[in-house]
Amino acid sequence: MSQEARSQCTLEAVREAAVRIAPFAHLTPVLRSASLDRISGADLFFKAEHLQRVGAFKFRGACNAVFSLDEATSARGVVTQSSGNHGAAIALACRLRGIPATVVMPTSAPAVKRAAIADFGARIVDCEVAQHDRDRVTARVLEETGGVLIHPFDDPRVIAGQGTAALELLHQVPDLDAVIAPVSGGGLLSGTLIAAKELAPRVEVFGAEPEGAADAHASLREGRRITDLRAETICDGLRAHLSERTFGILSRRCDGILLTRDEEVLAAMRLIFERMKQVVEPSGAVALAALLRERGRFSGKRVGLVLSGGNLDLDALFAPPRGG
Amino acid sequence: MSQEARSQCTLEAVREAAVRIAPFAHLTPVLRSASLDRISGADLFFKAEHLQRVGAFKFRGACNAVFSLDEATSARGVVTQSSGNHGAAIALACRLRGIPATVVMPTSAPAVKRAAIADFGARIVDCEVAQHDRDRVTARVLEETGGVLIHPFDDPRVIAGQGTAALELLHQVPDLDAVIAPVSGGGLLSGTLIAAKELAPRVEVFGAEPEGAADAHASLREGRRITDLRAETICDGLRAHLSERTFGILSRRCDGILLTRDEEVLAAMRLIFERMKQVVEPSGAVALAALLRERGRFSGKRVGLVLSGGNLDLDALFAPPRGG
Repeated sequence: MSQEARSQCTLEAVREAAVRIAPFAHLTPVLRSASLDRISGADLFFKAEHLQRVGAFKFRGACNAVFSLDEATSARGVVTQSSGNHGAAIALACRLRGIPATVVMPTSAPAVKRAAIADFGARIVDCEVAQHDRDRVTARVLEETGGVLIHPFDDPRVIAGQGTAALELLHQVPDLDAVIAPVSGGGLLSGTLIAAKELAPRVEVFGAEPEGAADAHASLREGRRITDLRAETICDGLRAHLSERTFGILSRRCDGILLTRDEEVLAAMRLIFERMKQVVEPSGAVALAALLRERGRFSGKRVGLVLSGGNLDLDALFAPPRGG
Repeated sequence: MSQEARSQCTLEAVREAAVRIAPFAHLTPVLRSASLDRISGADLFFKAEHLQRVGAFKFRGACNAVFSLDEATSARGVVTQSSGNHGAAIALACRLRGIPATVVMPTSAPAVKRAAIADFGARIVDCEVAQHDRDRVTARVLEETGGVLIHPFDDPRVIAGQGTAALELLHQVPDLDAVIAPVSGGGLLSGTLIAAKELAPRVEVFGAEPEGAADAHASLREGRRITDLRAETICDGLRAHLSERTFGILSRRCDGILLTRDEEVLAAMRLIFERMKQVVEPSGAVALAALLRERGRFSGKRVGLVLSGGNLDLDALFAPPRGG
C-alpha cells in the first residue's frame, strides 16, 4: 500500500466523505427491539443500512468515490464488475453525478439484478462467468472509454465512505461498548475501524463472518492474507477475500472476527423479520447471528450492529397464490 | 346502537384513548419511499402499525379497552376468542395491567400463534373450530370466571383505541388529502373516520377491502349490512363482517371502499418488502394495493396509508437451506 493511499484511511477522510455524500445518502436510523434485547441479554442498536439508498451501505463508498473524481476523469465515466449491491450503488452514484457508468456482468446474472442496474441508467456489458473473461472484458471497456475502475472495497475512497455508517452510529449512540460489522472484502469493517477507533478508542470493534467464507478469520489468525479458501455460504455478499489494504487495517485495529454458521444466520434473519419487521439479506443478519452465538461475551453490553443490506431474492415468499 | 355507545365514538374518546395508551403503546413512525411515490404518482405516508407492539394496530384498541375497565371488573379478567392479532393484543394488554386473560382458541390453530399468546401469559382454552362451539366455550369461560369479553371491533373503547393511529398520523403529517385504511370488521376504519373527519374534515377517508371479502363495499352500496358473503382471500386479517355499530359509522362518514384483488395485494406486499424493506402481512398491504389500482384518483395527492400489521407466516422464506 502506498503512503498516499494509507494517508487517506483516516478519520479525517471519513469525515470528508460524510460531508461529500450528505446531499445524496440517507442518514439511516438506529433501530431497537425490546424483544431482541431480551433474547440477547444485551442492549442492541441496529444501524439500518438496509434502508440506505440501493438497500445497502455500499452506496456510501460508491458515492464518496464517484464524487471524489476530478472533472476530467469523471467525464470519461466509471466502470465496475459487480452485479450486486456495489454495482447498483455505482450506477446510482454516477446517475446522480450525471456521468456514464458501465457494469460488466455475466450473461448468467439474474434478470432482476440486470434490470435494477439498467434502471439506474448504467450501460451493461456482457461477459462470461469466468473471472478471466470478466477481467478481459473490463480491461477492454476501460481502454475503450478511458473510464476509471472503482473497486468494491480495495479503494481508500470507498473505505472512507463505508466508515460514515459507523461515524453516524457513534453520534447517534454515544456510549457503545462494541460494534459488530460483517466482513467480506473488508471495506465496511475497515471504515468502521477507522471511524470507531479514532473517535471512541474504548469501543471494541468486531467483524462477523460465516464459517463457510472465513478468510478474514484465518488471515488474522495466521498473520498473513489467506486467499485460497473457497467460499460456501448463503451470504452472497460475503464471499470476497481481504485485499492487502483491508488486511493491513484489520490486522492493526480489529478486536476479533466472530464466526457464525449459515443456520445461525438464517435464524438471526428470521428474528429480524419477526421481531423487528425489517427485511434484511443474509449478509445483513450475520452480525446478530455472531452476537447471539457469543451471548456471554456481550451480556449487559451496549452493542451496535450493522444491518448491512436488505436486497433479498423474494421469489420464495411471493410465489403466486394457490387457488387465490 | 345505544345512545351511550354512540356517545363514546367521538374525537374526544379517541383523544382520551391516546392519553390512556401512551405509557404502553408505541408512537409509530411515518415511513416514506421515493420509489413508491414515483410508482404511484402520489406522495405516500405510511403509518407503520406493523411496528406497533404485537406487530399490529390491534394493540391500540385492546390496550384502551383493558385499561378502561374498572378495578372490580378487571380483577375478574378478560376473555377473547381471537387467535390472531387481537388475541395477542389482549394478552399483552392484560399482562401490562396485571390481570388474567383467557383466549378461547380452536385446537387447530397454528402452534406458533398459540405459543405467542401463551408467551404473553394468557390462559388458552381449547374449543372446536365451529363458531357455535367457540361461542359455547366462551360463554362457559365467561360464566366461570365472571370475566368480561372484549370484542375485536364491536366495542366503542376498541374503536377509540384504533382511532389513535389516525390521530397520530394527522399530527405527524398535517396536510394530507386522503387516508386509506384496511376494513374488515370496521374497527380501524371507524376509529380512523372519527379522528380524521372531526380533526380535519377536508381529508377524504377510504376503506380498502379484498374483492374476496367485500362485505363492507356491498353493505355501503346496498345501504344495509350484508353478512352472508363467504370470505375467500389471502388477507387473513380481513375476513370479518361489519357490526351494526361500525356499519353505522361507515355509512355516515366513509368516502368509499376501494377494492383490490389478492394478486394486487401480493404485488403491493412485495413492493413494500423490496422498496421499503418492511415486513407486512397481506392485510397490511391492502391500502397500497387499492391506491395503486386507482392511480388516477390519487395522482399528485398526499395520501396516508395504514400499514396495519406485520405478522406473517415466514416458513416459506425460512425453509432450511438446501445443502447448507
